[in-house]
Amino acid sequence: MAFDIDEYLVKPGDKVDLSGIDTRSTPFWDPDDKEEGKAHLPDLQQRMESLQELLWAEGRNRVLVVLQAMDAGGKDGTIRHVFEGVNPSGVRVAAFKRPSEKELSHDYLWRVHQEVPGDGELVVFNRSHYEDVLVVRVEELVDEERWRRRFRHIVEFERMLADEGTTIVKIYLHISKDEQKERLQARLDEPNKNWKFETGDLVPRAKWKQYQQAFEDVLSETSTEFAPWYVIPADRKWYRNLAVSEILIQTLDGLDMAYPPPEEGLDQVVID
Amino acid sequence: MAFDIDEYLVKPGDKVDLSGIDTRSTPFWDPDDKEEGKAHLPDLQQRMESLQELLWAEGRNRVLVVLQAMDAGGKDGTIRHVFEGVNPSGVRVAAFKRPSEKELSHDYLWRVHQEVPGDGELVVFNRSHYEDVLVVRVEELVDEERWRRRFRHIVEFERMLADEGTTIVKIYLHISKDEQKERLQARLDEPNKNWKFETGDLVPRAKWKQYQQAFEDVLSETSTEFAPWYVIPADRKWYRNLAVSEILIQTLDGLDMAYPPPEEGLDQVVID
Repeated sequence: MAFDIDEYLVKPGDKVDLSGIDTRSTPFWDPDDKEEGKAHLPDLQQRMESLQELLWAEGRNRVLVVLQAMDAGGKDGTIRHVFEGVNPSGVRVAAFKRPSEKELSHDYLWRVHQEVPGDGELVVFNRSHYEDVLVVRVEELVDEERWRRRFRHIVEFERMLADEGTTIVKIYLHISKDEQKERLQARLDEPNKNWKFETGDLVPRAKWKQYQQAFEDVLSETSTEFAPWYVIPADRKWYRNLAVSEILIQTLDGLDMAYPPPEEGLDQVVID
Repeated sequence: MAFDIDEYLVKPGDKVDLSGIDTRSTPFWDPDDKEEGKAHLPDLQQRMESLQELLWAEGRNRVLVVLQAMDAGGKDGTIRHVFEGVNPSGVRVAAFKRPSEKELSHDYLWRVHQEVPGDGELVVFNRSHYEDVLVVRVEELVDEERWRRRFRHIVEFERMLADEGTTIVKIYLHISKDEQKERLQARLDEPNKNWKFETGDLVPRAKWKQYQQAFEDVLSETSTEFAPWYVIPADRKWYRNLAVSEILIQTLDGLDMAYPPPEEGLDQVVID
């Protein structure tokens, strides 16, 4: 599969119209070959595993993956499938839920900055500072003047991280309103999915259009050379897993990593 | 004393020439009235104490004071004298020394951001992120391209803090090379000051001019409306204490704070 990740890239300055992006499209895989697509994932997981081992061994780069989506958009499932098999020593998932009182008493980037990757680490943000221009905006938790200023803060924050050695990849999992309905319904119907259902999830669903508008602004205002957004059609989970894996693999491949040279004289060592 | 703090303000865009600023000047106090000057400090400490209590009780504003100076420039002494009597529950000093291995494995703002004030807090940075464009620059710990980019990071970081509700005051304690010699000598000569002497302090002293140049760039590049620098003549400790106190008092005064309104019906409460 020659997978051109630029297909999904939001070019800096582009105005994004989400309604024009088909949530079921699979341009790099025949949609009738779903089973073959699923069977291809382990190959990608293996590549991911090797690249992450190299990242950790070299200890020079830092990688930050930001995952955003509507509820039931597949953030948890993506993390589970794409990172299956990686070494947890060098990989960390930071989930940003409703902020605590202590977090709210600081600026919104405070809790986020604490979780950014260190040397050799790969950190996945399951939700992120973008919630502070998404839910915070739609639910009118701060006034417009205040959340509008945050686009600049966020771009400059990410610029600083990038300048200082962090590779940033931001992924929006794009699902349709119908697909969300099906997934939420499954959480109601299937006992072992009940724990994932929260009545609160129906609130953003009722404001679907406003959230899509807020996501469009995020994608349009904050996709940069140093911290690009990718919009992934995510109604088909198997394709979504392939697409996200490809983006991360190609990004890690681009880092031009190498194992550190062995200690000198290692070939003379005799272990008795 | 009508103390005009704007006298010490670095106006945004100004090019600072430190050699043109007299480290012994005392424009708002007769230098012959040193004893009266010293006797005036407790009044200022009391005002500081009241304002900080209000800040803490109101719990709405956040105040960040950044202190920078050459070694023996008086950072510790300033903190001791200016903040004598404040309530430690709402005041915190964060000292940034040589970064740890874990800190070095992250961007230079990582450890600093963790220490910024929360609601109602006043935090003093004894040294700060500015070391990453001062000692790091002069000692060539990173290349010029990299430290030059940091001016922008820092300005944008402080803009974000300010936009989100932090009042920032940055103070450079300006001493002469002769005054530093005297103070370092005292650390050698007086047994109870020996603990403050580090041979390492002689290294930056030997590069005095380069450090002054680096400070001039910091002051010129990063003094903004939302995070202004003040340059305080600091050879005379008694005057320095008055000047720093005045700056902080007038800044806190400008916040227009008020105690939260009492719970309703409080006047009906009978305690038996």
